[in-house]
Amino acid sequence: MMRTRPLKVALLGCGVVGSEVARIMTTHADDLAQRIGAPVELAGVAVRRPSKVREGIDPALVTTDATALVKRGDIDVVVEVIGGIEPARTLITSAFEHGASVVSANKALLAQDGAALHAAAEQNGKDLYYEAAVAGAIPLIRPLRESLAGDKVNRVLGIVNGTTNFILDKMDSTGAGYQEALDEATALGYAEADPTADVEGFDAAAKAAILAGIAFHSRVRLDDVYREGMTEVTASDFASAKNMGCTIKLLAICERARDGGSVTARVHPAMIPLTHPLASVRGAYNAVFVESDAAGQLMFYGPGAGGAPTASAVLGDLVAVCRNRLSGATGPGESAYAALPVSPMGDVVTRYHISLDVADKPGVLAQVATVFSEHGVSIDTVRQTGKDGEASLVVVTHRASDASLSGTVEALRKLDTVRGVASIMRVEGE
Amino acid sequence: MMRTRPLKVALLGCGVVGSEVARIMTTHADDLAQRIGAPVELAGVAVRRPSKVREGIDPALVTTDATALVKRGDIDVVVEVIGGIEPARTLITSAFEHGASVVSANKALLAQDGAALHAAAEQNGKDLYYEAAVAGAIPLIRPLRESLAGDKVNRVLGIVNGTTNFILDKMDSTGAGYQEALDEATALGYAEADPTADVEGFDAAAKAAILAGIAFHSRVRLDDVYREGMTEVTASDFASAKNMGCTIKLLAICERARDGGSVTARVHPAMIPLTHPLASVRGAYNAVFVESDAAGQLMFYGPGAGGAPTASAVLGDLVAVCRNRLSGATGPGESAYAALPVSPMGDVVTRYHISLDVADKPGVLAQVATVFSEHGVSIDTVRQTGKDGEASLVVVTHRASDASLSGTVEALRKLDTVRGVASIMRVEGE
Repeated sequence: MMRTRPLKVALLGCGVVGSEVARIMTTHADDLAQRIGAPVELAGVAVRRPSKVREGIDPALVTTDATALVKRGDIDVVVEVIGGIEPARTLITSAFEHGASVVSANKALLAQDGAALHAAAEQNGKDLYYEAAVAGAIPLIRPLRESLAGDKVNRVLGIVNGTTNFILDKMDSTGAGYQEALDEATALGYAEADPTADVEGFDAAAKAAILAGIAFHSRVRLDDVYREGMTEVTASDFASAKNMGCTIKLLAICERARDGGSVTARVHPAMIPLTHPLASVRGAYNAVFVESDAAGQLMFYGPGAGGAPTASAVLGDLVAVCRNRLSGATGPGESAYAALPVSPMGDVVTRYHISLDVADKPGVLAQVATVFSEHGVSIDTVRQTGKDGEASLVVVTHRASDASLSGTVEALRKLDTVRGVASIMRVEGE
Repeated sequence: MMRTRPLKVALLGCGVVGSEVARIMTTHADDLAQRIGAPVELAGVAVRRPSKVREGIDPALVTTDATALVKRGDIDVVVEVIGGIEPARTLITSAFEHGASVVSANKALLAQDGAALHAAAEQNGKDLYYEAAVAGAIPLIRPLRESLAGDKVNRVLGIVNGTTNFILDKMDSTGAGYQEALDEATALGYAEADPTADVEGFDAAAKAAILAGIAFHSRVRLDDVYREGMTEVTASDFASAKNMGCTIKLLAICERARDGGSVTARVHPAMIPLTHPLASVRGAYNAVFVESDAAGQLMFYGPGAGGAPTASAVLGDLVAVCRNRLSGATGPGESAYAALPVSPMGDVVTRYHISLDVADKPGVLAQVATVFSEHGVSIDTVRQTGKDGEASLVVVTHRASDASLSGTVEALRKLDTVRGVASIMRVEGE
């Protein structure tokens, strides 16, 4: 059954992930060959710094000329673990044109140019697989794209960034503030020196775009994703969350509108009940909750980053793509036939938790309640507490459009009796 | 892109799952066609009672002659949701011989005759998919078989039976005894009139055999799986578990031996720490925890049974198999190349929690400790409590072979000072 001519793999990038891919390809060569039906061979490794010693990699395979490597013409699969938009985009496109299929872990590129890359793959009859681009080792793309192919996904709700989950978990469990928790994450290597992409939600937004596109068989671009970071979350927000039986997570949420005619995708911190399975996702772990018509509620949990976990996802794709090549087939490509429009954040229906500092005078609650009512937002609970002549009001709303809720908050800020809006947070997962 | 000639599907069985499959095939026909690349058509439905009215199914499609249906020669995919060994086995084999691929939800058959069925599929160049056979809607077979194809799975630890999880969760949360919790499960429809297959672990053992086979690329038969039911679990066991910061779950555990040369598969109730992700799996939900070399710890969670969830898994397979037919390929078949032997339960390394009723005399603990030591079992903790002149000893061991542990218990029973062994339970997930 076993073909003896090996399939040739070009590896673009040999950092944390790439070196693990190369290591596993070597140490698990026999297993990979059995599972694919032919041996796989590392045919070239494109790097920026050729002088760096790379244990286990034949120096003769190392090149700085990635462009020439993908154009060789004898490459079966290009594994792209460089990241970023360029040169990755040009290299991947060139790989398809020169006969290779591609396995990529590049969330930013997939979120921004997924449609064009899928089109290039399809035109050339090649595969583009990218399980590692979302939630690291967690099988997520394949379950959404294949296991749930006969179902209708209505909602994807996920913790897809390990750095921010580590920080929020630390704040929750120790009462630390944001900066203190970030410092610890940095010291432990969970946060990069410049943590912007993580803490401002850019990384999660790219993943949300990819997940929404697959879940709803529609094209969702990075620009379509509403994004709020989590740098403003305070210890006091966590205290409020605890009062409500909740914790706070940075969530990527992709939803089909109830009428089915549009979808939304967004990333922001939100309170979720402690009883929700996502609430107990600790440390740098990721987890994605999927709700569909027939399957109901599913959750996928695991390490969302790291060299070996990401390499596991890359290698699973590599096996699939190699098998496809041997059988002369390709796997499922982009499926955007539903072409559902992406609605703006204002159309999202959600709940708010709002803390107001108000004057300690009679009639304030009535004034505040009137503002909610005028904006068509129904109040679920109000808690009033007085301290040192000041008073605070904590309002939790029923479900309303995000536009109505923002309008309400705008109007509240203009009330003389409202001294300040201490915090606003959405409430999800109920 | 769309082929207009439909792919023909024969449905064997039209009960809780089959009727949902038929319903979704009708209501989601357009989506399925887009995702497959061709329409799918229900070409026949084999049932036992043709007179029963089946909403949404054309009576002209209904037949009692399943044998003739699978032999028609124009069937692309046979969906088998009859369950049981015969006639399912003969029908599936016949389907392959007459040109059809097969999607099955039949765990008992796959666990018993998986190898022969896979061989029949391969001989005829057809697909055999069975995502629905294990843990209902939860994508598990595909992640193990494809997403982790480039990784090395060391352990699968799962709650794969919803009925028993419902019962154990009820006992845990209410303090109810086994019978009371079973009665409630029966009243709510979670347990069948004869709950033997669930509560004695037969159902979970079939799933363990399937999971072990896929995870370890080896052949694991139902007979290879050690099995203990959960009918002996008592409220007092739950009290002991709570004392240890644990709860009790019926677990299916598939493990690769540390030396890598063999595997084990077993089903039994076990204590697991409350901090383990499986501990918080409530009600009739299922969840499977997978540990692999590169990916680390993954968990898959969702509804493990029910018409619609199982149909979701069946339809995901149906889409994949139809796509394979259109491209002239087949998906990954059985992969048993590793051919690892299955070791007996005695070789499993685990921990025990043992409650002994002992005489309240000096020297008893020394006697008991000597028995453990003679069997090479190291004690982790001992708790001694006296009540009404009697005393009880709770011993938690370190890891040791199950054979040594059973030998220890045998010897303890023979001690004059040991009046009884109140309970023995394995401790997992640490």
